[in-house]
Amino acid sequence: MKPTLPAARATLLPLWYAAVLCLSAAARGAPAPSPPGTPPKKPLTTAEVLAASAPSDWRALDPADTLYMELPSGRVVIELARQFAPRHVANVIALARGHYFDGLAIMRAQDNYVVQWGDAEGKKPIGEAQRTLAAEFERPLRGLTFTRLADPDTYAPQVGFLEGFPLAADPALGRAWAVHCYGMVGAGRDNDVDSGGGTELYVVIGQAPRHLDRNVTLLGRVVSGMELLSVMPRGSGSLGFYEHAEQRVPIQSLRLAADVPAAQRTDLEVLRTDTPTFAAYVAARRNRLEEWFKVPAGHVDVCNVPVPARVRGASAAAK
Amino acid sequence: MKPTLPAARATLLPLWYAAVLCLSAAARGAPAPSPPGTPPKKPLTTAEVLAASAPSDWRALDPADTLYMELPSGRVVIELARQFAPRHVANVIALARGHYFDGLAIMRAQDNYVVQWGDAEGKKPIGEAQRTLAAEFERPLRGLTFTRLADPDTYAPQVGFLEGFPLAADPALGRAWAVHCYGMVGAGRDNDVDSGGGTELYVVIGQAPRHLDRNVTLLGRVVSGMELLSVMPRGSGSLGFYEHAEQRVPIQSLRLAADVPAAQRTDLEVLRTDTPTFAAYVAARRNRLEEWFKVPAGHVDVCNVPVPARVRGASAAAK
Repeated sequence: MKPTLPAARATLLPLWYAAVLCLSAAARGAPAPSPPGTPPKKPLTTAEVLAASAPSDWRALDPADTLYMELPSGRVVIELARQFAPRHVANVIALARGHYFDGLAIMRAQDNYVVQWGDAEGKKPIGEAQRTLAAEFERPLRGLTFTRLADPDTYAPQVGFLEGFPLAADPALGRAWAVHCYGMVGAGRDNDVDSGGGTELYVVIGQAPRHLDRNVTLLGRVVSGMELLSVMPRGSGSLGFYEHAEQRVPIQSLRLAADVPAAQRTDLEVLRTDTPTFAAYVAARRNRLEEWFKVPAGHVDVCNVPVPARVRGASAAAK
Repeated sequence: MKPTLPAARATLLPLWYAAVLCLSAAARGAPAPSPPGTPPKKPLTTAEVLAASAPSDWRALDPADTLYMELPSGRVVIELARQFAPRHVANVIALARGHYFDGLAIMRAQDNYVVQWGDAEGKKPIGEAQRTLAAEFERPLRGLTFTRLADPDTYAPQVGFLEGFPLAADPALGRAWAVHCYGMVGAGRDNDVDSGGGTELYVVIGQAPRHLDRNVTLLGRVVSGMELLSVMPRGSGSLGFYEHAEQRVPIQSLRLAADVPAAQRTDLEVLRTDTPTFAAYVAARRNRLEEWFKVPAGHVDVCNVPVPARVRGASAAAK
């Protein structure tokens, strides 16, 4: 064992997050990026895949589909999923434009499950938005082109990615739906399927609660700032609700990025999920080639493929 | 929508944790407990399964196989997995008895991955214990009787439970291994397979990193106090290490429960995983019957079946 480097330092291999952090160093020793569309010639590590990616392998977040939630600890960036929940997305944007969320609070944190925010009193006016909407749990599969994983899934006949979002599909039913992976954001509801609408939002902070798939409307995912939400003190009340109002964490504001001056935006881009580079990234996560790994997993869960994000154009910069 | 009850209150259904919290209320309206060994006659909810459980469906934690890690925020209870890693378990007990961990610290928290603790300087004497051990990544499957899940798994031919621990198995290889579910505790190592030994420990705090299975020795799981570990501020250094010593969270002590006076122990029991009651619990998690759920999942992941724990003998008391 290296005496100056405790075992812990090299103990567990980086996730994509660490891979992105290492991008700068990795890029220096990496081969010249392949032209877009050219699959890598030999298996690469996740860091090597990202280091060799071309600018066209990434897409910038669209400010018209991006939310900024400002917490006392910093900014959470959420990409909205119009592909799965167009009406809920439009409604949450209307709520944000009406400043509905400003001054509301995170009021629930249930370990290994969800963090949730909204109006604890349920009395705040919603302006031009709607309080409830018809559910958007699923969408037609017909006509949908998505990046399918070859790996078997416990819950669904097919899984994969659509424009950065994890998805499941059942050809027999002709239906597709967004999947409750870590960081996915949904619209809380009451018992009635149509009782949600986006006035209460939650984010997955633990093992993917796939039993919620097709039972709640998912409308986005956290692209940056998850680490601000996942550390919220767990509530001691039933379902992880905070028992005292002073335990709630205030939301300073929740804005559509397009409504924020350009200079104040977080200029992020995410790895496209319909490219050979993404396929190589999935392959690198399926069978890790880093020296530390001894037994390749041979498979990968749809929720174990976090889609990389980075500061836009930062081809050799840390996230 | 109930005006006095915001939608959020009933938004997402309880995990087992909430089910246990609800035990008191559920028990009042529940049928008389079935005799041990009698499967429930109709499908039940998780809360109903637990409310109807018999005392013999539970087993007390053995103080000789239980660790208490005392943090400034409270006690973490870890059950050790002799079934999978007898040498590592013995070594960690030797380290605890030598007070090795006392005054060390949590020094790494990587979002959606692991929290890790040990000796950041790598210099603390280990007394009678050993610094490294031969890996215990797998064990023979032969002769092993475990509770197998019928559900397909992405990573392994078979999955199930052995005495409270999630496990995977491959009959073709004749091997079985513990699975990296949320709350599982392992021994960090360097690149060499035999470079771990328990002086650095980590716990899974996110989506099950199943690619670590058979690559690290798992030696226990957190039975109580996970919410103290999962909220650790994420480290800003590479791999989530804290960049400054003052960010580390001190470990006041780590003791074998048997070495703690009986009056100071946390008297927990966990649901046995080899009973009809556990089978009913799994079935209840596979297809939720609570009114809130509209589309049953039909399947359950081995890491979506947290094994319930409660204060010993608390058949009608909250955890």
